[in-house]
This record gives sequence, C-alpha cells and structure tokens, in this order.
Amino acid sequence: MAWLDVLLGARLANRDYGRRKIGAFEGLPAMGLDGLGSSAYGPEAALTILIPLGAAGSAYIEGVMAPIVALLMILFVSYWQTIRAYPNNGGAYIVTKENLGTNVSLLAAAALMIDYVLNVAVGISAGVGALVSAAPALHPYILPICLGVLVLVTIANLRGTLDAGRLFAAPTYLFVVSFVAIIAIGVAKALLSGGHPAPVAPPPAPPPATESLSLWLLLRAFASGCTAMTGVEAVSNGMSAFREPPVKYGHRTLAAIVGILAILLAGIAYLANSYRIMAMDQTQPGYRSVLSQLVGAVIGENAFFYVAIGSLLCVLVLSANTSFVDFPRLCRMVAEDGFLPKSFAIAGRRLVFSVGILYLAATAGTLLFAFGGITDRLIPLFAIGAFLTFTLSQGGMAVHWRRALRRSKSRREAGAHHLHFWINAVGASATGLALAVIIVAKFLEGAWITILVIPAVIALLVSIHRYYRWVAREVCDPGPLEIDAGSSPIILIPIEDWDKLTAKALRLALTLSPDVVGVHLTHLSGPEAREREESLRARWRGSVEQPAAAAGIAAPRLMILQAQYRDIHEPVLKLAGELGQKFPGRSVAVLIPEVVKRHWYQYLLHVGYADHLRRQLLRKGDSRLAVIDVPWRL
Amino acid sequence: MAWLDVLLGARLANRDYGRRKIGAFEGLPAMGLDGLGSSAYGPEAALTILIPLGAAGSAYIEGVMAPIVALLMILFVSYWQTIRAYPNNGGAYIVTKENLGTNVSLLAAAALMIDYVLNVAVGISAGVGALVSAAPALHPYILPICLGVLVLVTIANLRGTLDAGRLFAAPTYLFVVSFVAIIAIGVAKALLSGGHPAPVAPPPAPPPATESLSLWLLLRAFASGCTAMTGVEAVSNGMSAFREPPVKYGHRTLAAIVGILAILLAGIAYLANSYRIMAMDQTQPGYRSVLSQLVGAVIGENAFFYVAIGSLLCVLVLSANTSFVDFPRLCRMVAEDGFLPKSFAIAGRRLVFSVGILYLAATAGTLLFAFGGITDRLIPLFAIGAFLTFTLSQGGMAVHWRRALRRSKSRREAGAHHLHFWINAVGASATGLALAVIIVAKFLEGAWITILVIPAVIALLVSIHRYYRWVAREVCDPGPLEIDAGSSPIILIPIEDWDKLTAKALRLALTLSPDVVGVHLTHLSGPEAREREESLRARWRGSVEQPAAAAGIAAPRLMILQAQYRDIHEPVLKLAGELGQKFPGRSVAVLIPEVVKRHWYQYLLHVGYADHLRRQLLRKGDSRLAVIDVPWRL
Repeated sequence: MAWLDVLLGARLANRDYGRRKIGAFEGLPAMGLDGLGSSAYGPEAALTILIPLGAAGSAYIEGVMAPIVALLMILFVSYWQTIRAYPNNGGAYIVTKENLGTNVSLLAAAALMIDYVLNVAVGISAGVGALVSAAPALHPYILPICLGVLVLVTIANLRGTLDAGRLFAAPTYLFVVSFVAIIAIGVAKALLSGGHPAPVAPPPAPPPATESLSLWLLLRAFASGCTAMTGVEAVSNGMSAFREPPVKYGHRTLAAIVGILAILLAGIAYLANSYRIMAMDQTQPGYRSVLSQLVGAVIGENAFFYVAIGSLLCVLVLSANTSFVDFPRLCRMVAEDGFLPKSFAIAGRRLVFSVGILYLAATAGTLLFAFGGITDRLIPLFAIGAFLTFTLSQGGMAVHWRRALRRSKSRREAGAHHLHFWINAVGASATGLALAVIIVAKFLEGAWITILVIPAVIALLVSIHRYYRWVAREVCDPGPLEIDAGSSPIILIPIEDWDKLTAKALRLALTLSPDVVGVHLTHLSGPEAREREESLRARWRGSVEQPAAAAGIAAPRLMILQAQYRDIHEPVLKLAGELGQKFPGRSVAVLIPEVVKRHWYQYLLHVGYADHLRRQLLRKGDSRLAVIDVPWRL
Repeated sequence: MAWLDVLLGARLANRDYGRRKIGAFEGLPAMGLDGLGSSAYGPEAALTILIPLGAAGSAYIEGVMAPIVALLMILFVSYWQTIRAYPNNGGAYIVTKENLGTNVSLLAAAALMIDYVLNVAVGISAGVGALVSAAPALHPYILPICLGVLVLVTIANLRGTLDAGRLFAAPTYLFVVSFVAIIAIGVAKALLSGGHPAPVAPPPAPPPATESLSLWLLLRAFASGCTAMTGVEAVSNGMSAFREPPVKYGHRTLAAIVGILAILLAGIAYLANSYRIMAMDQTQPGYRSVLSQLVGAVIGENAFFYVAIGSLLCVLVLSANTSFVDFPRLCRMVAEDGFLPKSFAIAGRRLVFSVGILYLAATAGTLLFAFGGITDRLIPLFAIGAFLTFTLSQGGMAVHWRRALRRSKSRREAGAHHLHFWINAVGASATGLALAVIIVAKFLEGAWITILVIPAVIALLVSIHRYYRWVAREVCDPGPLEIDAGSSPIILIPIEDWDKLTAKALRLALTLSPDVVGVHLTHLSGPEAREREESLRARWRGSVEQPAAAAGIAAPRLMILQAQYRDIHEPVLKLAGELGQKFPGRSVAVLIPEVVKRHWYQYLLHVGYADHLRRQLLRKGDSRLAVIDVPWRL
C-alpha cells in the first residue's frame, strides 16, 4: 500500500499518540476557520435583511451587531470556564451527559452532528461561491471545485489534525493579519475624518427604501447576524486534540479565535456605518460582497485588496476543516457510549478516527451533490444546531456549578462557584433567547427541516444503542467452560478433483478428526457426468483408500452429490443438516481448500466458489456447523 | 431474493435445460434483429457515399447493392452447409478451431467478440438516434434512453433466450410484414407505371453533383453498403440455443432472416432508383432517412407510415439482442477451452451464461457512455469484425470439406463434398475480397482501431490460457495421500472478552486439538489497559483453567499481545510464525468466533474484524496456517 503511505503518510504506532497533539499555533487554523469565516457572512446576512430600509439600513447595523458581540463575549467567558472544568473534553455532549443526563446529551449530540455536516457543505459551497463570483470563468465548475476542496480537506485530516493545522496555517494567519490591518486603517481614517471618511473606491449607491423600520425587521436581522457566532464552540469540543497542558492551549486558542472574531465583527459594523456600505442582492449581476466593498472603500482596489480577498476566500473554503477536527472526536465519544457503530471509535493509521472523517466527507459530499453546490437553501438550516448546542452546553455548566456550590467547602470557593453559575446561567438564557428568535424568524425558510431531522437522528442513536445492549446480553456471562472432550467433529471437504489442494485438505482433516468425507458436486448429468464420476472414484480408491488402509486408519469416504441449481452450498448444507440429526452430539465442519489470491486478476480468473460457500454456510448453517479454510499458495 | 425472482423469473433446475431451447419462431427475433436492422443502415450508408454524384447517385445504387445481395446469397448457401456440418455449434470459433487450428480460432474469437460489443453499442445508439430524429423533444435524453434500452435488453436476456425471443417477437414480425408489404406495393406501382411511379409524398430534391463517377467512389459505396450483411452469421453461432432437431430450426431461421433481408435490400435498391431517392446529410436540419423517404413516396405519410417507421425503430433499437444471444455462448466455449475466466462457462439461475451477458452489457454501456450515445465514430470500426469472421469461418469450412473429400467412400459422396468445398471456397474468397476493400476504404475513418484491438484481445486470451495451464500444472498429480496421523494443529483463538463466543470457540477447539491458546489483543496502553488485562486473567483462571484442571486436561493458555498499529492480524501472524518455527512438524489453525450477520445494518454495527483477520491470515500466513470460522447466531 505504498500509495497510501504517500497520500496519508506512514502509519503511526499507538505510542506516537501524544506527539500528534497540537498547540495554539495549529489550533487556530484547525478549530478557528469556522469561527473566523463567520465574520464574512454574519454581518452580510444581517445587512441583507436591512436592504428594504434603503440608504438608512447601514445606520442600524451597529445596533444589530452590538448584542451579537455582547453574546459572543458571554460565550467566551462561559466556554473559558467550561474548558477549565472539562480539560479533556468540554464538548456539549460530555457536559450535558454529566449534568443533564443521557437524553439531553443525545439531543446535544444530534444537534452537533447536524451542525458539523451542514458546516462542511455550507462552508465549502459558500467559499466556492465567493471564489466563482470573483472569477466568473469558473462558474460551470462549481460542483467539481466543491468536491475537489472536500477531497483535499478530507485527505489533510486523514493525515491527522496536526498536519491539517500546519497545512492550513498560512492562509489563516494571512487572513487575520490582512483584515485586522484593514480595520485598523479604516477606523483610523474614520476617526481622523470625524466619522465621515471618504472612500478610496466608493461603494455602489444603496437601493431606494421600500419598508420602514420595524422591530420584526430588526429581530430578523439579529437572527441572521447570529450566524456570525457559529464555530465558537469548536475549541471546547476539540480539547482532546491539544497537547499537555490542554487547558493552557485551549484557553489560548479560544482567546485568539474570539478576540479576532470580535474585532472583525465590531470593526465591520462600525466601518459599514461610516462608509455607508449596504448588502447587495446576490442574484443580481454586479453583485459585490460587503467585505469586498469595505476593503475597497478603505484601501482601494490595489494589490493588497486582492491579497486580502484571496485570503478570505481560502478561509471560507477551508472553514469546513473545523468540522473535520471535531466531528470524528464527537462520534468517537458517542460510539464509545454505544450510540454509534463501534467503528467510529477505532483510530485509523494516522491515529485519527478515520471512519468519522470519511462519514462526514460522504454525507457532506452527498449534500453538496444533491444541492449542486448552491448554499442558499442550506443556510437557514444552519444556525439552529449551533445555538441549541450553546444553550444545552451552558445549561449543563450551570447545573455543574450548582452541584459544585453544594459541595463547596469554603466561603471563597462558594463565591467563585456562585459567579461561575451566574455566568453560565446568563449565557444559557441569552443563547436560548437567541435560539427562540432564530427558530421563529427562520422557521418557514428551512429551520423546520432541522427541527424534523434532530429527532430522527436521536431515534437512530437510541436504536443503535438498543441493538448493542441486546447483543451484549446475548453473549455475556457464559459461566465456566463445559468440557465434553472426545467427540471430534465430522469433516466434509468439497472437492473438485483429486489434486494437490484436495490432498492437503485431507491430510489436515485427518489430524483433526477420524471422520472425513470428501464431497464432489456434479453440475452435469448424462454419460459425461457418469464417466467423470467413475474416474474420480477410481483415483480415490488408489490414492486415498489404499494408503489409509495401509496406515490402518478409517479411510475418508467419497460422496458424489447433484447440484441441481448449480449452487454449491445447498447440497453441502443439506448433507451437514442430515449428519447433524444423525449424530446429535457432534458438530460438523466443512473444510474448504482455497487458492490464495495475491493479484487482482486472480479474483477474475478463479471462480469465487470458496468465498461464496463459506459465506452461505456460516449464514445458513446451524450453530454446530464450522468452516475451516485451508489456503493453497500457487 | 424475491425481487430477483420477479425481475428475472424463478431459477431453473438443470433438467429444465432442454425445455428452455427455442424454435424458428423465437429464433427470428432472437438472432435476426441484427441482420434485419442492417437493411435500414446498409443501403443508406452506400447512398451517403454516392451523395457527391447528385441526382445521378440513386441510379448507381442498384449496381452497388447487386454484388452485396449476391454475396449475401453465397453466405446463405455457405452457412446452410455449416449448420448441417456443425449442428451443435457452427460458430466461426468452433469451425476455425477444428479446421484451422487454435491460433486462427483465437483470431476469429477476438473478431467476433469485438463485433458483438460494437453491435450492441452501434445498434442501440443508431436506433435511439433514429427515434430522436423522429421525436426531437427527446434529444437531451439520448444517453439515458440508450442506457435504459441496454438495461431492458440485458434483463430480457438474463431471463433466458426463450423469454427474450418471445418478448421481442411482436415488433420484429410487425416490421417484417410492414416492409415486405410496402416493397410489394412500391414494386407493383413502379412496374405498372413503366418504371417511373409518381411518389405519394415526393422525396426532397437531391443536392447538386460535386464529383463525377469513379471506381474508388463505387468501391467505397460498396464497402459502406456491406454493413447491410452484418448479423448473417448469428444463426450459426447460436445453434446451441435451438431445440431438437437443431439443424431444422437453424435452417428455417437462417432462411427466414436471409430471405427477408434479401427482399428488403433488393427492394430498397430498386425503389430508391425508381423514386429517385437519395441519402441526406444527417448533420443538417430537415434530415430524413432513406427508408422514411421511401415509405413516404410509396404510401404517403398516413397512419401506416407511422406504424412501419415505429416498427423499424423497434428493430433497430433491439438489434443489440442478437449479440446478447450469441456473445455469452461464444464466451462459454472460449472459457471452456481455458482462454477466458471460468465464470463465463457457468450457467446462471435461468440457465443462460449470466457473466457473459453482464460483461457484454457493461462493455457496451461503457462504450455508449464514453461516446455519449453517438454512433458516427463507431460505425467504421464495425464491419471489419463481421467480414473477418465470414472469411475465417468459410475458410475453415473449405478445409473441412477437403478433408471430408479425402475420406469420402463413394463417388457420389465425393461429388457432394467437392461442391461444398467450392461453395465455401468461393464464399471465403468473396468475403475476403470484400474485407480487403472495407479495410482500405475505411482504414483512416477508424478501421485501424479494430485492427489494433484484435491483437490486444488475442494477447489477453493467450495470457489467460497460460495462467490456467500454470495453475493446472501446480496442483495436478498429488500422488497417493501421505498419512502422518497424530500431530494435531496448535489452535489460536483471538478473543475480546470471556463471553459466550469465546466459550463456544474454546469448546470446539478442544475437540480438535489439546493445544489451545487464547490470544487477547490490547489496543490501549497505560493503567486502563493493565486493569482490563488483570480482570480478563482472573476470569480465565476461574472459568477456563479450573474446569480444565477438574476435567484432567491441559488448560488452554491465555496470551495478551499489544496491537501497536491497531491492526489485529499482525500480532496473530507473528505468533503463528513463531509457533510454526518452534514446532516444525505441526500446523497452526486460527479459530475465529464470528457473529453471523443476517441484516444489512449488522454489517455497519459490527466491526468487520473477523473478515479482515481471516483474509489477511489466508493471504499473508504461511501454507501451514489454516483458519477455522465458528459462527455465533444472535
């Protein structure tokens, strides 16, 4: 598998596990791309709702974004506490499981999973959409580009979180430096000009007003703007990726992500108002995104403009990466609790949970394919999962602190826990309120789909768990071993001819049991069949029965059966069943000699009788029927 | 598999074989569709070459078609003889193998196979092309319609040749009746009007002449017109499909196909000249096929017109069926001689050779997909295979008669053989000459591809044969059985836990050998691993070692190994290798307890360790390593 080594890197031993963990430098690209990418579409989504207000719209954006930034700060403090309280994994699943019970944790798990899958599809398609609007020649290739990016991100993550973080570091840091610089320049210009800076490249004129201001409009703008906060929970979910001490690296990564995001959101809102920048209708020709108008207004359309917009495109396109880091870790925990197939909990060749990564890629790829890489219909489904998770996670933390409060030994400790409790309780209420606003404002646009899918996912998780519990009950507790020595099984050997395979099979069978029967199946009838039968019997007498008699052991018998339907397993199954009835105490083993295939073409050239026979016997035989495979190497 | 029963019909027992054979009524649709369909494109192809002659072109079509009809008659007599001489199978492969040796028979087999695959792709795409030119609304769906027809024909043939023949009988006989009637009416009108009948719907005016008559043009028209003869060999190749006596039904079917085809070709040529019908450029708007012009000229565009053209479309679309009858039978014979994988020689549930049918469908489907269902590029590749087969088959028959001549006992017999020899010798020379003309005339248009592919196919057949010969040498002639009684194998049992699977596996193992070792693989390290290890050891002592001691037998040991790379097979392989070195006389068997999966979801929920382990052990273990599967039913 040399090509797998090249593609994914050499496989890693268990002892390498510690060395594969990341610090804050890789943490920002690994877990922050989703959060940072949100700055591109959050304010724009809010401004889009304000379009009917015309030129006055941009004056309200600061008012809409202010509660969002405040909410972001609450979440920051809240997750800071969570990371310290759950240094190994502070994801919503663990926090709710420990504090609110299994049922709520399944709700959190379902919300998170849906959110991660949507984030991949939305992130990639939004990024590629922005790329295509910058380079219209690529327009016919939206879907192939989306799938290509998906494959790239998947491979990077199959190589490991460390490699993915390093690979995506350059565009991430380029984006951060560019946009913080642009916002600083813009704010300085605005302050120097007394709040009314002259744009270098003026933004297009806003459309005429068609509606007057209403609370409902502001609420809808707020609900749309809330998408700017998705991705903040990523650090707490991905704590197990950090090297020792995880709390330190987790805190640093969280602070970096939230700090940069807050600067970006506040800066964008302030500058959109100062430069009078409005969102434009994306379906109309001449569309330009809010950030591209803003960068143009602040620094003009020079080389730096293209560097900044290019890094933004990279961040958007790669924002799927956050899901690839967190989704497999979540699935692993859920699988270890028995709510997902066990294969999600097995570390692959690079010590990441490959099944989760591949499953995420397949699901997101299917979504992208089904929607042709078009984002618009997916976005309304999106923020619900994130805000449900925020609320559940902080609700769980509030319960956690109240319990700690009861156990606290000193007054000082109690005071601290009290403060922690209130922070998380306020956070939970705030995000819960935001969630309610989002559900109401976006219900008809698509939020109902998410609300339908969540219970379906929970039902699936519960039925998987029920199956595993049933299996465990079925096989557990066998009691001490019962030993009934002596009754060796009757061994049947399907044979084609008297050749070296048959000879080897017979030799092995005679070391296992004195009762060996060779079974020859004939598909033919008529004189040709009789002739072959006679010839085989004669060879059996000379080559098997006589040497056995000479050695003084019972000779293996030869039976010739008709395969009326050309299916080899039915006559063998029937014979095994008859033998099982005749000798109730003994088991029956079918010994299958098989040519070992080392090359792909051998699978085409050898009829897969052995495989087929084994599968059918194991599936349809009774429980006393075993199968013995004897390999023959050519 | 109830849905398979519905789709393909209930499976058939070997004794039904005789009853599944066909007579002449089913023979015409089963084997004649290719030949009859040729009448639609053969004369048109010849007329297309004559377009540069302008209005004068149609005057030469009788001259071009006359030698083709003559050739057809020679082929008819020739194949009539072949069928009588080879009543079980008179295909070119058998005839050349028996008379010209294996090498020439491989050339015939390769030519036939390529021809059959091309016939499917060309037949379906030409038919669908004609359908689409009649109903332009279907134009965007050419490829899906082509693939849909392919699936239909494939399913009909998987149900059996009898079912396919019956299913396609209605359109075939409708076509025959309609076109014979139209030609009779046309000829009657032409004769009554003294050779210049007035068309009911006049054909479009011919294009102006751009070239004058030349021998090269006539040769090219002849080469193109020869495609009208493809499909004539079908009966001789499919003789094994006929019921007793096959010669009678073969002769009837051949006579019907050739008779109808000759009437059609001669009639079309005569009427094209009488009504001055010319071919039109297919790429131009307003294109109408020669046959549709002809039917319109003879009877006008009434309801009967649409019935006739509809039946023609059906015949074209279904002309692929001939390949589906003959290709699997050819592949079966080639496979029985060891030149193709053995699976081509196995009768499927409906007693047809399903692998050949599916392979043909897959190859033709790939061709259709690769060329988007467009015929034009495939047609020049097409006639070469057929004419090469004609020539080889008749050359073989000529040799056959010369041999018979030498053995003939009476003067009368010798005279008959002499006549037979000359008929086939003349036939071989005529088709050989036609083949030479076709190769020269079409070499640059695409014939070179066929000429390159044929040796590639032969090389493939030869290397498959070489592989089978090598395998046969490797396993043959084992000599009398050597009996070394007593040394039972060492049995290793990979165990996860002390559960009922392990208990059952141990019980079976102890009946096979006194030396049993339980192998537990740990993926973990650190304190958690040590704890689990201790608990397993304690249970092993209590539940295995103590009962074994009480029964007075050697207790199975428990070994705990590290799976550093999370791959279960490597530690087991290593242990088996070490044991093999330590005990050189004994074999090692790995006994794998496995949960039997009865539902698809169980494959997702149970990690496929057992399958993976067995496969790797059989592939990578040494030849003394056997694998024992013990099923566990939940």
